[in-house]
Amino acid sequence: MLRKKKENSTGPKLKIIPLGGLEQIGMNITAFEYEDSILVVDCGLAFPADDMLGIDLVIPDVTYLKENKERVKGFVITHGHEDHIGALPYILKELNVPIYATRLTMGLIEHKLEEHDLMKGTKRKVVKFGQSVNLGQFRVEFIKTNHSIVDAAALAIYSPAGVVVHTGDFKVDFTPVYGDAIDLQRFAEIGKKGVLALMCDSTNAERPGFTPSEKTVGRTFDNLFEEHKNTRIFVATFASNVDRVQQIINSAYKCGRKVAVEGRSMVNVIETAINLGCITIPENTLVDLDLLKNVPAEKQVIITTGSQGESMAALSRMANNMHKKITIGAGDTVIFSSNPIPGNEKSVTKIINELLRKGADVIFQDVHVSGHACQEEIKLIYTLVQPKYAIPVHGEYKHLKAQAKIAESLGIAKENIFILSSGDVLELDEEQAKVTDKVVTGGILVDGLGVGDVGNVVLRDRQHLSEEGIMIVVMSLEKETGQLVAGPDIMSRGFVYVRESDELIEEARLIVDEAVQSCLDRGITDWGKLKGTTKDVLTDFVWKKTKRKPMILPIIMEV
Amino acid sequence: MLRKKKENSTGPKLKIIPLGGLEQIGMNITAFEYEDSILVVDCGLAFPADDMLGIDLVIPDVTYLKENKERVKGFVITHGHEDHIGALPYILKELNVPIYATRLTMGLIEHKLEEHDLMKGTKRKVVKFGQSVNLGQFRVEFIKTNHSIVDAAALAIYSPAGVVVHTGDFKVDFTPVYGDAIDLQRFAEIGKKGVLALMCDSTNAERPGFTPSEKTVGRTFDNLFEEHKNTRIFVATFASNVDRVQQIINSAYKCGRKVAVEGRSMVNVIETAINLGCITIPENTLVDLDLLKNVPAEKQVIITTGSQGESMAALSRMANNMHKKITIGAGDTVIFSSNPIPGNEKSVTKIINELLRKGADVIFQDVHVSGHACQEEIKLIYTLVQPKYAIPVHGEYKHLKAQAKIAESLGIAKENIFILSSGDVLELDEEQAKVTDKVVTGGILVDGLGVGDVGNVVLRDRQHLSEEGIMIVVMSLEKETGQLVAGPDIMSRGFVYVRESDELIEEARLIVDEAVQSCLDRGITDWGKLKGTTKDVLTDFVWKKTKRKPMILPIIMEV
Repeated sequence: MLRKKKENSTGPKLKIIPLGGLEQIGMNITAFEYEDSILVVDCGLAFPADDMLGIDLVIPDVTYLKENKERVKGFVITHGHEDHIGALPYILKELNVPIYATRLTMGLIEHKLEEHDLMKGTKRKVVKFGQSVNLGQFRVEFIKTNHSIVDAAALAIYSPAGVVVHTGDFKVDFTPVYGDAIDLQRFAEIGKKGVLALMCDSTNAERPGFTPSEKTVGRTFDNLFEEHKNTRIFVATFASNVDRVQQIINSAYKCGRKVAVEGRSMVNVIETAINLGCITIPENTLVDLDLLKNVPAEKQVIITTGSQGESMAALSRMANNMHKKITIGAGDTVIFSSNPIPGNEKSVTKIINELLRKGADVIFQDVHVSGHACQEEIKLIYTLVQPKYAIPVHGEYKHLKAQAKIAESLGIAKENIFILSSGDVLELDEEQAKVTDKVVTGGILVDGLGVGDVGNVVLRDRQHLSEEGIMIVVMSLEKETGQLVAGPDIMSRGFVYVRESDELIEEARLIVDEAVQSCLDRGITDWGKLKGTTKDVLTDFVWKKTKRKPMILPIIMEV
Repeated sequence: MLRKKKENSTGPKLKIIPLGGLEQIGMNITAFEYEDSILVVDCGLAFPADDMLGIDLVIPDVTYLKENKERVKGFVITHGHEDHIGALPYILKELNVPIYATRLTMGLIEHKLEEHDLMKGTKRKVVKFGQSVNLGQFRVEFIKTNHSIVDAAALAIYSPAGVVVHTGDFKVDFTPVYGDAIDLQRFAEIGKKGVLALMCDSTNAERPGFTPSEKTVGRTFDNLFEEHKNTRIFVATFASNVDRVQQIINSAYKCGRKVAVEGRSMVNVIETAINLGCITIPENTLVDLDLLKNVPAEKQVIITTGSQGESMAALSRMANNMHKKITIGAGDTVIFSSNPIPGNEKSVTKIINELLRKGADVIFQDVHVSGHACQEEIKLIYTLVQPKYAIPVHGEYKHLKAQAKIAESLGIAKENIFILSSGDVLELDEEQAKVTDKVVTGGILVDGLGVGDVGNVVLRDRQHLSEEGIMIVVMSLEKETGQLVAGPDIMSRGFVYVRESDELIEEARLIVDEAVQSCLDRGITDWGKLKGTTKDVLTDFVWKKTKRKPMILPIIMEV
């Protein structure tokens, strides 16, 4: 990989700044900066971690972008998954810049903007594959790739300091269901001209081999539909996997079945896909769920959300007799066309057990292929692009590390491989690359309408409450005399059965009463001290009796 | 499978009653009943499900056994895992009957009894393989099997109604690390004489093939230790897997490494195993953790708990600089000799990421074999035992179902295969088998010292608190006049940042004040009504402002 030394090597450098945590699944958002120009690739949300109790979703802290508002030229979006577009409506409210995306990606973004009433105020440009858009000193070219959603793009980001190729989420599918295969020729062409850095999807970097084509799943459906020709068939899959839905419809059509779609998010995506022509449905094949009753059971296919065992999704409700229109039971076949996302294994197993218990036949193995590149595909892209620097993206730390090993095995020098942390400022040009700075990043928690009003203190309280419950001690002191005129009374929630605890609570009350009286008798009337004493004696007493530590909240009223 | 009709076919029947939920992982406990005799196989605990907030563990509700106390002859224990012995100390306090188990199993039970101060009062008998014990009308023979813990037994339970073979948790290991291979001859011999029912481990019933021998892991260690000969090596595995520990020690010894063991539960098990001679340690190989510092890093092996990513286990603490004596970092090799138990995938990944980030080399694939039988082993046992009835046990519903399919494929009639639910009373003899009754069963939650004092109400409160937090409204009413003399004051925990919510809380206070005053003005002084009104107006107000529903707790004091 010999290169000519470029003229601008001592001039300004390109900066790459991951803002959402490259190490985290979700919240994909990366700033590219060159002098007066900043462009942002993707703007995703994350789903809350297990310890973020009560939180609905997490969006990136874009303080850095807000502080450099006037330089931000726009958002360039690779594809329409939540972890790449989900935070847009929240961030746009504070940073109103244009959005560039391919057709279906934009369709899904627009659906969000409508919900947040942001359509009018937001500039949008739909970009075709092969097209470029100019954003300040940057030019960004959209390159066709394959992924588990239609219209996924890689980006070639041209800057005066060199070209960065960002794959987005991708796989190499030589026989995609819809549209063309990934534009490998263009990757090669750009690579031939010289690429500064490759930012490549690491999700499957631990898996050897080559991800099978989406089309292989179509053949599996054909076989399964044939094997179960006398039963009603349910297929659960990801709402956004338009190609998968297309193949289910194709297989259904071949054997004369009608198809209904259930689950709000899936209906949304499919409607958008139909409107944009990304999915082709033979006439009279798609029927409304309400009209299914006129179709014999063995001529029905119901495509549904809930493949991750989400308790409120359509599949769960249909399995648990909680769905208004459909109940799954004996004689039905349920196909999971999905794998559990890490962390969802238990809830998926739970619904499989429930469906089996109801008498359904459940098929949950080998009816899915990944949308991400395995090791041989990653090697292919590296070999076509021949970057100077490798910056593995998308995936947890272990996946990034696995891709780093692949890059090394392909001859990229160890010191030219960067696993960035959120906020790292990587400065690079042909001469060198290094992390020179760190900007503020983080996750902002969204709970109901509140954005950022739940923080660590609140979460810690929720954690404490969730494990131990709360005991509340109230008492009234007389203003003039400072004497106890009512209470202390003790109430608890989430601590212990009331009927079991009557005696315990009464004993606790006496102990607090005694401690408070003793303070008052000694002339201690400072509320802080009274509350402190109450907390101490009660904590101590409850721990001794139960080996538990409920949150204790003393309240004093003055009358 | 032609059988002679037995004389007693119209007489009393054998009853089999799963009391801990056969469908659930953990809480293995099954009653066998014949006239005046009840014997209980295993007495396990379960670890709490995700929605059992703050619960430490779950033990079976043995109301049925307590109601039939005088007929219960004893506990027969198959092996020493928590899900088979863990509830014993709790249950023995209410049902003091003898325990029968093999040597290591009893050693581990005794460790528990000591902790609960139950050694003196509990009759125990150590049984050898091939030996039988008489319990009322039953005779129980212990048969050697293989599993991921030494001294695992299958049981042949002889009753006047016929013989039941219960495999316990097992695999077929022709080349076990310690002791003999499973006693297949005895299974065959008993089978030849005629077996009424087989209760066989279903855990791996979905997996084709044959589980590899534990010995194969030994060879893997040899290779890994050779490959990483210049680094300190950590091996994380299950505390109770004595054979695994033996093999790690063997490999360490071969290359002249010293071994230290870290993690309380592992130290306990290994001490017990050493005392009973179930593990052989070459002289000068095992060293105290404190003395490791005198050994060169590349001559150390540290065997540790925490392979499931448990945040308080030794491995986690060593990875997060929270361990007093050892910190894992660059240059160390960490081997996970375990697979994530379903539900633990995320926490295992988390610690792998953390270790990689610290610069350690992490090996987490293919250094483990299961302790449970796969499909071909299950078929082997069925073929040797040739039971009339099949009762799949151990595993989730889908596993039981998978074994049912295997049994069917081997020619057992569908109507002779029973997937029992917890509490089902299966009556059986040579003539027929059917579920005739249902007894009370369930899980009793243990939280700290409290056994059964946390129930659904408390859990529901904890769930609510964990997601939304709590708002407490206090006010004082004067006894004589019924007038508001202090408050309403509002406090919150786990709801929202206080500094963010000042305005919100003040506004809420005014609304509650107004509502309460309005009640009082209209002569409404009933506390229930005042509290109801407070709850209603506040819930409404908070929902409108935040789309959240914190728990609301109104408190009235009388002064």
